[in-house]
Amino acid sequence: MKIKATNNNVLVVRDKSAENIGGLYIPDEAKKLMHRGVIKSVGSLCSDKTIKEGVIGIFNKSAGFEITEDGVIYLVLTQMDIISTK
Amino acid sequence: MKIKATNNNVLVVRDKSAENIGGLYIPDEAKKLMHRGVIKSVGSLCSDKTIKEGVIGIFNKSAGFEITEDGVIYLVLTQMDIISTK
Amino acid sequence: MKIKATNNNVLVVRDKSAENIGGLYIPDEAKKLMHRGVIKSVGSLCSDKTIKEGVIGIFNKSAGFEITEDGVIYLVLTQMDIISTK
Amino acid sequence: MKIKATNNNVLVVRDKSAENIGGLYIPDEAKKLMHRGVIKSVGSLCSDKTIKEGVIGIFNKSAGFEITEDGVIYLVLTQMDIISTK
Amino acid sequence: MKIKATNNNVLVVRDKSAENIGGLYIPDEAKKLMHRGVIKSVGSLCSDKTIKEGVIGIFNKSAGFEITEDGVIYLVLTQMDIISTK
Amino acid sequence: MKIKATNNNVLVVRDKSAENIGGLYIPDEAKKLMHRGVIKSVGSLCSDKTIKEGVIGIFNKSAGFEITEDGVIYLVLTQMDIISTK
Amino acid sequence: MKIKATNNNVLVVRDKSAENIGGLYIPDEAKKLMHRGVIKSVGSLCSDKTIKEGVIGIFNKSAGFEITEDGVIYLVLTQMDIISTK
Repeated sequence: MKIKATNNNVLVVRDKSAENIGGLYIPDEAKKLMHRGVIKSVGSLCSDKTIKEGVIGIFNKSAGFEITEDGVIYLVLTQMDIISTK
Repeated sequence: MKIKATNNNVLVVRDKSAENIGGLYIPDEAKKLMHRGVIKSVGSLCSDKTIKEGVIGIFNKSAGFEITEDGVIYLVLTQMDIISTK
Repeated sequence: MKIKATNNNVLVVRDKSAENIGGLYIPDEAKKLMHRGVIKSVGSLCSDKTIKEGVIGIFNKSAGFEITEDGVIYLVLTQMDIISTK
Repeated sequence: MKIKATNNNVLVVRDKSAENIGGLYIPDEAKKLMHRGVIKSVGSLCSDKTIKEGVIGIFNKSAGFEITEDGVIYLVLTQMDIISTK
Repeated sequence: MKIKATNNNVLVVRDKSAENIGGLYIPDEAKKLMHRGVIKSVGSLCSDKTIKEGVIGIFNKSAGFEITEDGVIYLVLTQMDIISTK
Repeated sequence: MKIKATNNNVLVVRDKSAENIGGLYIPDEAKKLMHRGVIKSVGSLCSDKTIKEGVIGIFNKSAGFEITEDGVIYLVLTQMDIISTK
Repeated sequence: MKIKATNNNVLVVRDKSAENIGGLYIPDEAKKLMHRGVIKSVGSLCSDKTIKEGVIGIFNKSAGFEITEDGVIYLVLTQMDIISTK
């Protein structure tokens, strides 16, 4: 069975390429703080319905912790860790 | 009588074999933090209805405490300890 | 008049024999942490309706405090101290 | 005018004789911790409707504080200080 | 314009004569802790409707702080500071 | 555009003359603690509807912080800083 | 896709020119504490509907943190960081 987030958790597959963006000037400080990834599962208690499967979530690099299921490394975040989507 | 979880508690029988998964590369750090087990009883105050009997719950290795009933060792977790199901 | 629990309190008569269970192997650590007893009265603010008179409650050995009424020693617990019923 | 409790306060007239009960064995430890008294007034915010005028309330000996009105010493408790009624 | 309490504040004019009551024996300890006064204004967020203008409020001597309006010294209390009315 | 308070904030223009009131005796202690001013804008989350534009608010001298917009110095308070109106 | 705020977050593009306002006297202390910017996205959990896209938000200079998306530096604030709008 597919892994599913519970409570207000959000499972994300971290996008390794996220740190390289376009050609414009980006302050190093800001670039380094954020990571992004595809949201794979959202717990039923998440109260923001714009946080949903398939959307790219942006979150603090140091948020959450990783679990491994079926050979995939998922980042476990809570709803509030997702500061924006894209 | 069968033991039943109260409040927002969740009773889980820890899956001893959970630490050995497939053949893919799994970072040691991540593998070691999580345990899993079959959910046996869910308290009536648990607000996430995807946490239910018979489902496999994934939880932090160090969460909760054990009780023994009818010769079975149950792990007592609360709803929020279950970070995902499978 | 019969004593009645208030608020979210639960009155329990501790089962002295609870520490001796069956013949299966029980880890000493787990066995020692929990006590059980018959629930005698449940306060009207208790939100888990599975915690009710006549049911056996399982609770942490060190939870609550004792009061004596009509020669009976009652353990005063709150709803959240009852971690499962049987 | 008669004094009336406000908020979730409970006014109790402490029963001085409460420490002497019947003839059964009562552990000294337990006996000493609890006092009782007749509930004289209950604030309108008290959410447990079993806590009401005329009922005997049982409470921790050290809970609340005393006020004197019309020559009567009232113990001012809050709802949660009443751990059971009789 | 007349001063009006906001939020869950209560404006009281402290009764200076409140410390001298009748002829019965009053323990000094208890007598000294409480003051009383006429409630002059109650904020719209006060949830206990028995706390109202014109009623005598009893409160801890050290609660609140004083403000002066139109030559009158008002004691500013919050709803929970009023422990009973009379 | 006119500046508008958000959330439960209240924008006040402090009344500089507020410290000089009438001819009656005012204890120095009390007089010094409070300031007043005209309420200019109230955030939509303010739950006390008596706190409104045009009313004089009374507040602790040290509450809030100042911002400058269009050459006017506004004091930014939150709803709870307004202890009474006039 | 366009970046969107989640939860009660607010994405703002800081207005660099905000520190130079008109010709009136502005106390240096006050001027330095606040920044402003155009609100670009508001999370669905923001409970103040006056905080909305296109409006100028005023906020404490040190609030929030910056993220970079599509070459634009966004300031990530939460609803409560916006103390007024214009």
